[in-house]
Amino acid sequence: VLASTPVDLQTLLDEIAAAAPAQAARGKVADYIPALAAVAPERFGMALATVDGQVYGSGEFREPFSVQSVSKAFTLALSLAREGDALFNRVGREPSGNPFNSLVQLEYEHGIPRNPFINAGALVVVDQLLTATGDAFGELRAFLRAETGEPALDCDAVVARSEAEHGHRNAALAHFMASYGNLKNPVEVVLDHYFRQCALTMSCADLARAGLFLARHGVRADGSQLFGRSEAKRVNAILLTCGTYDAAGDFAYRVGLPGKSGVGGGILSVLPGRGCLAVWGPALDRSGNSVAGVHALDTFTTRTGWSVF
Amino acid sequence: VLASTPVDLQTLLDEIAAAAPAQAARGKVADYIPALAAVAPERFGMALATVDGQVYGSGEFREPFSVQSVSKAFTLALSLAREGDALFNRVGREPSGNPFNSLVQLEYEHGIPRNPFINAGALVVVDQLLTATGDAFGELRAFLRAETGEPALDCDAVVARSEAEHGHRNAALAHFMASYGNLKNPVEVVLDHYFRQCALTMSCADLARAGLFLARHGVRADGSQLFGRSEAKRVNAILLTCGTYDAAGDFAYRVGLPGKSGVGGGILSVLPGRGCLAVWGPALDRSGNSVAGVHALDTFTTRTGWSVF
Amino acid sequence: VLASTPVDLQTLLDEIAAAAPAQAARGKVADYIPALAAVAPERFGMALATVDGQVYGSGEFREPFSVQSVSKAFTLALSLAREGDALFNRVGREPSGNPFNSLVQLEYEHGIPRNPFINAGALVVVDQLLTATGDAFGELRAFLRAETGEPALDCDAVVARSEAEHGHRNAALAHFMASYGNLKNPVEVVLDHYFRQCALTMSCADLARAGLFLARHGVRADGSQLFGRSEAKRVNAILLTCGTYDAAGDFAYRVGLPGKSGVGGGILSVLPGRGCLAVWGPALDRSGNSVAGVHALDTFTTRTGWSVF
Amino acid sequence: VLASTPVDLQTLLDEIAAAAPAQAARGKVADYIPALAAVAPERFGMALATVDGQVYGSGEFREPFSVQSVSKAFTLALSLAREGDALFNRVGREPSGNPFNSLVQLEYEHGIPRNPFINAGALVVVDQLLTATGDAFGELRAFLRAETGEPALDCDAVVARSEAEHGHRNAALAHFMASYGNLKNPVEVVLDHYFRQCALTMSCADLARAGLFLARHGVRADGSQLFGRSEAKRVNAILLTCGTYDAAGDFAYRVGLPGKSGVGGGILSVLPGRGCLAVWGPALDRSGNSVAGVHALDTFTTRTGWSVF
Repeated sequence: VLASTPVDLQTLLDEIAAAAPAQAARGKVADYIPALAAVAPERFGMALATVDGQVYGSGEFREPFSVQSVSKAFTLALSLAREGDALFNRVGREPSGNPFNSLVQLEYEHGIPRNPFINAGALVVVDQLLTATGDAFGELRAFLRAETGEPALDCDAVVARSEAEHGHRNAALAHFMASYGNLKNPVEVVLDHYFRQCALTMSCADLARAGLFLARHGVRADGSQLFGRSEAKRVNAILLTCGTYDAAGDFAYRVGLPGKSGVGGGILSVLPGRGCLAVWGPALDRSGNSVAGVHALDTFTTRTGWSVF
Repeated sequence: VLASTPVDLQTLLDEIAAAAPAQAARGKVADYIPALAAVAPERFGMALATVDGQVYGSGEFREPFSVQSVSKAFTLALSLAREGDALFNRVGREPSGNPFNSLVQLEYEHGIPRNPFINAGALVVVDQLLTATGDAFGELRAFLRAETGEPALDCDAVVARSEAEHGHRNAALAHFMASYGNLKNPVEVVLDHYFRQCALTMSCADLARAGLFLARHGVRADGSQLFGRSEAKRVNAILLTCGTYDAAGDFAYRVGLPGKSGVGGGILSVLPGRGCLAVWGPALDRSGNSVAGVHALDTFTTRTGWSVF
Repeated sequence: VLASTPVDLQTLLDEIAAAAPAQAARGKVADYIPALAAVAPERFGMALATVDGQVYGSGEFREPFSVQSVSKAFTLALSLAREGDALFNRVGREPSGNPFNSLVQLEYEHGIPRNPFINAGALVVVDQLLTATGDAFGELRAFLRAETGEPALDCDAVVARSEAEHGHRNAALAHFMASYGNLKNPVEVVLDHYFRQCALTMSCADLARAGLFLARHGVRADGSQLFGRSEAKRVNAILLTCGTYDAAGDFAYRVGLPGKSGVGGGILSVLPGRGCLAVWGPALDRSGNSVAGVHALDTFTTRTGWSVF
Repeated sequence: VLASTPVDLQTLLDEIAAAAPAQAARGKVADYIPALAAVAPERFGMALATVDGQVYGSGEFREPFSVQSVSKAFTLALSLAREGDALFNRVGREPSGNPFNSLVQLEYEHGIPRNPFINAGALVVVDQLLTATGDAFGELRAFLRAETGEPALDCDAVVARSEAEHGHRNAALAHFMASYGNLKNPVEVVLDHYFRQCALTMSCADLARAGLFLARHGVRADGSQLFGRSEAKRVNAILLTCGTYDAAGDFAYRVGLPGKSGVGGGILSVLPGRGCLAVWGPALDRSGNSVAGVHALDTFTTRTGWSVF
C-alpha cells in the first residue's frame, strides 16, 4: 500500500517541516505551568512510523517534549485491553461538546464523564488501571518503553510536581466524581498517577513507534496482540470523534484521521493499516491543539490522500 | 478493491436481512406523526451500491419509506457545492453533545447551530440553499432524481403536512435563529421546504445510488463532479462525527463509517472509495437511530473489515 | 402609619426627581423597537398612591409611557384571582437565575417556565387568562381602566405592531412551550394578546393607582376584593423574588420592596399596607431595569425606612 | 407593636407544636452522614425571641441540634460587618436557580458563586473571614456565645469529622474556585472551618436569640452595633431571596419572611422590627427544607399577619 503513494515521504515531511515555523505565529504556547511556558513556539518535529517498520522524520523529531494529554490514547488502550467494554460503564464514548475540563457536563450526567479524553474521563481510566494493576503509571511506562525500545523513557518530575501545584481544576473533577462514587482509589493517588502520566517526556519518533499498534490492528512491536482488531478500531473511533478536545469535528474535517493532541504541542495520529504519525509544535490554537501540528497533518493527508474518508 | 473481500456480498446481505427482524424488538417506531407510527417495526431492507456500478440488495430494499433526516446529508452536500466554506460562518461542524432538537446549545452559542445535522443546523442549510436557488426542495429533488434515475421520486404530501402540524419545536428553532439574524428567508418558507425535504420517500436502493457520489470523491452518476475530493472528504467527516444524533461516538465505535440516520428508520452509510450502503428498519433506539440498521451495519463492517479504522 | 414618617413625602419626591436626570447617563434606552428607542433617556416621573387615597407625584408623573413588562404584575393578579394555585401547575414561582427570555431553563424544565415574569411565564399567564375569559387583553384593560378611573387607557397600536415584527424570540418561546403542550390557545393568538398587553400606555400616576390593591391586601378602588390577603401576599412575594429580571436579588438588597420593571423604563413597587410607587426613567441598566428608577426607589426606602426588611 | 397582635403568642406556638409531628411524614431525614440520619423525624421545637427581650418556646425548643447551613446567616453577617460591600466582588447576591451544591452555575460564571448561601458562596465567606480574622470558626463561635449567653456553645467534633469524610462535593467546589483564584487560603483549611461551622450544635432558643440582631437593625445583645440598619436590611434581603436553597420563591410565597434553613432540620426566620423565630423538625422536603418547619412558619405568619408583604 505504501508504495502506491505518488509522493516521496521523506521529501514531503521535509517540505512540511520547512513550512512549520511560520504557522507558530497563529498560536500561543501553554503557560499554566512554567515548564511548558518556557518552550520556544516555533520549534517543530514530525515522524512517521510505517507498519512495515520504517521510521521517517524531519525537524526536531528526536527531541523529547512533554506529551501531556497524548498519553491518554495509551492509557485508554491499556485499560480497554484489560477491562474490555466494562470500562464504558464508568465513562462514555461520545464527543463532549464542551471544553476538555468542563464540570457542567459531568454534573448533568451524574459523574459519568462523556468520553475517556476529557480530563474527567482520563481520571476514570487511570483509576480503573490503578485498580487493575496497582500501578497505573508504571504499567503505562513499561508499555511505552517496550514499544519504543527506549528503556530510559520516563516522566519529568519537575513537570509532574508543577502540574500538581496548579492542579485545582483536576482535583475538583476528581472530588466531584468521587462524590458520585465514580472513583475507586483515593483522590490523591489517582491525581498523582495522572500528573505523572501527563508529564511523560517523549519525542515524535517515540510517539510514532509507540502508537503503531493502533495502525496494526492491535499488534505490538514484539508481534504479540495487545488486543484484537475490533478493539483497535474502537480506540481509533474514539480518537477521531473525541481526541482533539472540542475541535474534534474540525480536525476530522481538515485532517480526516484519528488523533490525540496535548497542550505540550504534540499530536499523535493513526493511519489505519499504514502507519502512525507524530508531530510537535508548541504554539496552540484556542482549542488547545498545536497550530503547526494540525497544519502539518492537514498537508500530509491532502498530499497523500491518506485520510480515512 | 471490492474483489479483495473474503465474503460474498449478496450472501452477506441476505444473512443480515434474515437476522434483522429479531432486532426490532429492542426498539420503538417513531410515533410523533401518524404516518410514521403506522409502519410495522420488523420491516427491513438493505442495499449496497458499489463504485463500479453494481447494486446489491436484500429484504425490502426496493420499498419506499420516509427518509426524514437522511435527506440532510444531501442538502449539506448541495449547499457546500454552491457556497463552499462560507456555509460554516452560519453553522458549525462540531458534534453537539445534545439531542438533535435542543435549544440550549443554540442559546449558548448565540444562534449558530453546532453542526448541519441537528435540526437547527439543517434549517440554516435549507435557508442558504433557498437563497442560492430560490427553491431548496426543488433543487434537492432534481438532484436525487438525477442520481437515482427515478423521475417520480418525490415527497409525501400527507407526511409533510403532518410534520408541519406537529412542528412547534422546529418553528421554535427557526424563530430563535431568526431572532439572532441567522435566517434570511421568512420562517414559514424555510419550514415548508424543510418539512417537504424530510417527507421525501425513497427506497434503500434509491438512497444507496443517490449517496454514491460521497464514495466517489464527488463524482455524480453522469460522471460530472458535484464538488472535489476535498469537499467529499469533508461531508464524510461531518457524517462520521455528527450524523447519528447524540450517538455519533457510539456509531463510530461500532460501525466505523460515515453515516446519516433518520427517524423513519433509514441510515445512509458511506464506504469511501468502495460504495454506499442504505438500510431501513423502523424501530428506533433511544437516540433515534434504527436498531436493526445499526446492527446490520455493524455486522457488515465486522464481516468485511471495511470500517474506515 | 403614614403620619409616622419623619419626612415630607412631596418634598422627598421632588428631591428625588431633581437628582434623577443625572442617573440616566449610566444606562441605555431600549432600542429593539423604534418606538422605544426614540424616547429621551433623561426623562423622569414618580408617583406615590397611598392606601388612604392620596396621590403624590413629581417630574413627568402624568406623562404616559409604554409599560411593557410592568403589565405582567396585573395579568398575574388577574389570572391568580380566577384560577388560584392551579396556575402554578403550568408556571413556577422561583427566580430564574437566567435572563428574562432564556430558553435554556425552559428546556431543562420541560416547558414549564420558572416564574410568571420571565417572558415564557407571562405567555402562559396570558394563555390561561385567554382560556378563562376569551379576551385576555380586554380583561386587563377593563381592570386598569376601573382602578385608574381613566376610560381611555389603552395600548399603542404602533408599538404592538412593532413588537410583533421584532417578536421572533417570543414566537420561539411560544412554539417551544406549545411543543410541550403548555400552551392551550393558538400561538398567534397568545402572542397578539401578549404584544398588546406590553404596548399599554400608562403614566406613573396611573400605575401607582392601578397597583394599590396589592398594598391593600386585595381591595380594589371600588372597595371590592380582587382576591384575599393571602393572594396579595403571594403576588408581592413573587414580585420581590422575580420582578426585576435577573437582578431581583440586587433589587431586594438595594430597595427592599416588591417591584416589577419594564424595558420602557417603568417600575411599579409595592409598600404593603402603605401604598404603591411608580417611577419612570427610560435609560436601562444591563439587566433591563431603569437606572434612575432603581436609584429613586433606593433613595425613597432609605429616607423613609419603608423597606419590608 | 407586639401588643397589637390578636393572638396569644404562647398559645399559638403550642398549637403549632402540637400539629407538627404529623407533618414529618411528608419528608425524609438527611442521611448523607450517620449523625444526622439517626435523628427521629417527628421531633420538633420552635422558639420566638422578641425585640423587647421575651423568649417564647414550645416543643423541644431547648434541645440542641446540628444547625448546618443555618450557620451561613451568621458568617455572612460577620463577613459583611468586616468587609462591607467588597465581599460582593467575590460572591453574588442573586438567587441561583440551581440546587445548593451545583457546579454548573459556578462554571458559567467563572468561579464567582451566585450568592453567599449556596455551598460555594459559603466557602468564599469562610475564606474571607479566615483572611480577616485568622480564625473564622473561632470568630463565629465567639459571636454566638455572646449573643446567646451560652459559653459552652460549640461544634460537634464527630459531626464535623463525618462531614469531612463525606465532603467530596464541597472539596470539588473549593478546588474549583481555587482554580479561578477565588479562594485565598489553602483548600484544606477553608474546608476545615466550613465543616466545623456546619457542625455547630444549638437549640431553637439559642438560634432565635442569636439572630435577634437582624430584627433589631444590627443591634447586638449587649447593645452594640454589629453593623448599621442598611447592612441588616441587606442580610434580610439575601435571606429572603436566597436563604432556602432553590425553594426561596416558594418560601417567600408561603411564609413571606427572610429565612435560612439547614439540612439538620432547622430554620431561622427574621421578623424585621419584631423578633426572630427558630424552628426545628428533621424531616426535609425535596429542596432540603424542614417540612414541619416551613409549615410552622407558614401557620405563624398566616395567624399573626406578620409576613413582610
